[in-house]
Amino acid sequence: MAAEAGSALGLSVAVLAESPEDAACAVASEVLLGSPLVEGDMRALADRVDVVTFDHEQVDLAIIRSLRDDGAVIRPGLQTLQMAVDKAHMRAVLVEAGVPVPAHTMVEGGPEPRRGAGGPAAEAIARFGDEHGWPVVLKAARGGYDGKGVWPVNDMAEAAAVLAPLRGTVLVEAMVPFEAELAVMVARRPSGDMVTWPATETAQVDGVCREVLVPGRLPRDVVDRARVLGRHVAEIADAVGVLAVELFWSDGELMVNEIAARPHNSGHWTIEGAVTSQFENHLRAVLDLPLGSTAPQHAQVANVNVFGGPEGMDPVALLPRGLAVEGAHVHLYGKETRPGRKLGHVTVCGDDAEEVRELAWAAALSLGTPRAGGLRLPGALEHQSGTA
Amino acid sequence: MAAEAGSALGLSVAVLAESPEDAACAVASEVLLGSPLVEGDMRALADRVDVVTFDHEQVDLAIIRSLRDDGAVIRPGLQTLQMAVDKAHMRAVLVEAGVPVPAHTMVEGGPEPRRGAGGPAAEAIARFGDEHGWPVVLKAARGGYDGKGVWPVNDMAEAAAVLAPLRGTVLVEAMVPFEAELAVMVARRPSGDMVTWPATETAQVDGVCREVLVPGRLPRDVVDRARVLGRHVAEIADAVGVLAVELFWSDGELMVNEIAARPHNSGHWTIEGAVTSQFENHLRAVLDLPLGSTAPQHAQVANVNVFGGPEGMDPVALLPRGLAVEGAHVHLYGKETRPGRKLGHVTVCGDDAEEVRELAWAAALSLGTPRAGGLRLPGALEHQSGTA
Repeated sequence: MAAEAGSALGLSVAVLAESPEDAACAVASEVLLGSPLVEGDMRALADRVDVVTFDHEQVDLAIIRSLRDDGAVIRPGLQTLQMAVDKAHMRAVLVEAGVPVPAHTMVEGGPEPRRGAGGPAAEAIARFGDEHGWPVVLKAARGGYDGKGVWPVNDMAEAAAVLAPLRGTVLVEAMVPFEAELAVMVARRPSGDMVTWPATETAQVDGVCREVLVPGRLPRDVVDRARVLGRHVAEIADAVGVLAVELFWSDGELMVNEIAARPHNSGHWTIEGAVTSQFENHLRAVLDLPLGSTAPQHAQVANVNVFGGPEGMDPVALLPRGLAVEGAHVHLYGKETRPGRKLGHVTVCGDDAEEVRELAWAAALSLGTPRAGGLRLPGALEHQSGTA
Repeated sequence: MAAEAGSALGLSVAVLAESPEDAACAVASEVLLGSPLVEGDMRALADRVDVVTFDHEQVDLAIIRSLRDDGAVIRPGLQTLQMAVDKAHMRAVLVEAGVPVPAHTMVEGGPEPRRGAGGPAAEAIARFGDEHGWPVVLKAARGGYDGKGVWPVNDMAEAAAVLAPLRGTVLVEAMVPFEAELAVMVARRPSGDMVTWPATETAQVDGVCREVLVPGRLPRDVVDRARVLGRHVAEIADAVGVLAVELFWSDGELMVNEIAARPHNSGHWTIEGAVTSQFENHLRAVLDLPLGSTAPQHAQVANVNVFGGPEGMDPVALLPRGLAVEGAHVHLYGKETRPGRKLGHVTVCGDDAEEVRELAWAAALSLGTPRAGGLRLPGALEHQSGTA
């Protein structure tokens, strides 16, 4: 989607991809095959472009530092990337800056004796659980995404089982009894000039984003406070490009849960829903070009993700059904279909919150998306059977 | 732009391009190098894809017929393409169907004695000029675009000079004293199911489109009549995909001037200005998928084209200025900059006709576009000097 935005601006986008089958290859001006974790591959990319940027956080900070020291322009920079790739570091920086985050502590992964005869990690988790209540959430500090690397555990036995095979820092976190999850997208230039889009309500199931609603059920003052907090976090992180700030709204308080230093699922709605999309403003920001207006173009926007159904039906083959839904903007990412894999999204814009949500879900189900356990579907869809 | 729309839908777009430098190559999933006028090249393309479609009308109808007879799916089909590539045929079909067109006659190109001792073409032009008044417009029936292949002539001497080097049929046309030029975009499926976008007012200078205004200065009833006429022409042409119908509004009457069987400059505004763009609906139509809503998303839209300035300044290098204009959606086509070459366009959406036009022109001028002789610029821009 960033490459589509780059094409519209007449920019030449080179992609470093692991495989020529990667979706971005189909739409990039130039493809380099390789890995972001191999210095030679990253160096080949940096040699070809004016600015290096990212659509994921699987980066090696030592490589980034080495390229930067050799004069490559890398945006976002090291300070931001370090927060994005290391949840423990991110939490520490935010706490230091006085930003509210969920109660947490940190332990080291690895096998340990059980509670009672436990090592320091087990003891720390036990104390934390006793203080903040069970279940608690364990999160690998590095490498997680889309619910991977995140484990809610109900007791010490479960915690020890999760911890045993892990290496490196593990975040131990209170399960926040949130009323809503929110996200704020910020775009920031090297000068510090920045814009934010309206905060959105997001719904995750098993740690995977299923829908994004703008503005969702959130009262206006919460949306406004979330935007202010998003700007503050972008400054703390010295972000350049788009920064996604994921928040909990809990007991009258906003807390920062995660950040991502790139265009994010929480901002896909901006393609049709805002004057300027997160993808275009990400490119404008990392190229130090003037940022575009983030004004919403509709009172209500719903974004529902498309996942591979259990039968692995290809959503492209189901386009005749998905596109029959009035007002459905269908985005498919060109990925191979696998059950449960995120394959695209549908956005619907309008005036009525329930109606746009219903239409977006109707299109996503028509494209083969399975229902989401624990997420109540709008209106009549809740009681229909099957995937359409 | 069609490839960008195809990418969003997860479609795989293969492009037949004359050169790897062609703008479409940067964004297409697959590139075949060759010419649409070489049967082997067209056959190679047809073998790779489910549906063959076009973004120009430089096609060889014999090749199209041969491919079709061998089972290739080509949309639009032969009947539509024949009208699009041959203005003489187009006029004849429309006249036969009772559609109003400018007064015209047809002659054969080639050198001829002057009036008085003239051959049949000179005599026909002289008679036509005497009846309909001078100047008259000569148009090569085939091969023209963007003002090329169109010559206004003031007298028989000029007509003879134009005619001498031409071969094939030449259309001789009355200069229509139009109050406005309009265009209607239609998207039509193989079943005949179709949608139209609101008619637009267009401004050509020397036959080249400089701006498109939606709805422009046109009264509502004219816009509505133009849409009805557009649908009628799409049916007559048996169009599949997007059809652009260019019209004159003259003395209370709508007349069809040109048609183009593809996404068209008159419809670029739909990318941001309508729920579904002409590019997406073109792909949906030729793939026989349900068509998207053509509803406008704003009361007023202005599209101003970006051309290479006399110094050949690259608009990409001028993006810091162009993107500084509030609300300017900049599209650059990745073409090499040459003075006078169409390199992109800017779209601005809003509530006020004069304001969106002024902003779109401000951005286009900032990107190096020269002023258009004979076209009055909005507000303060009219009196500013230079290209910014």
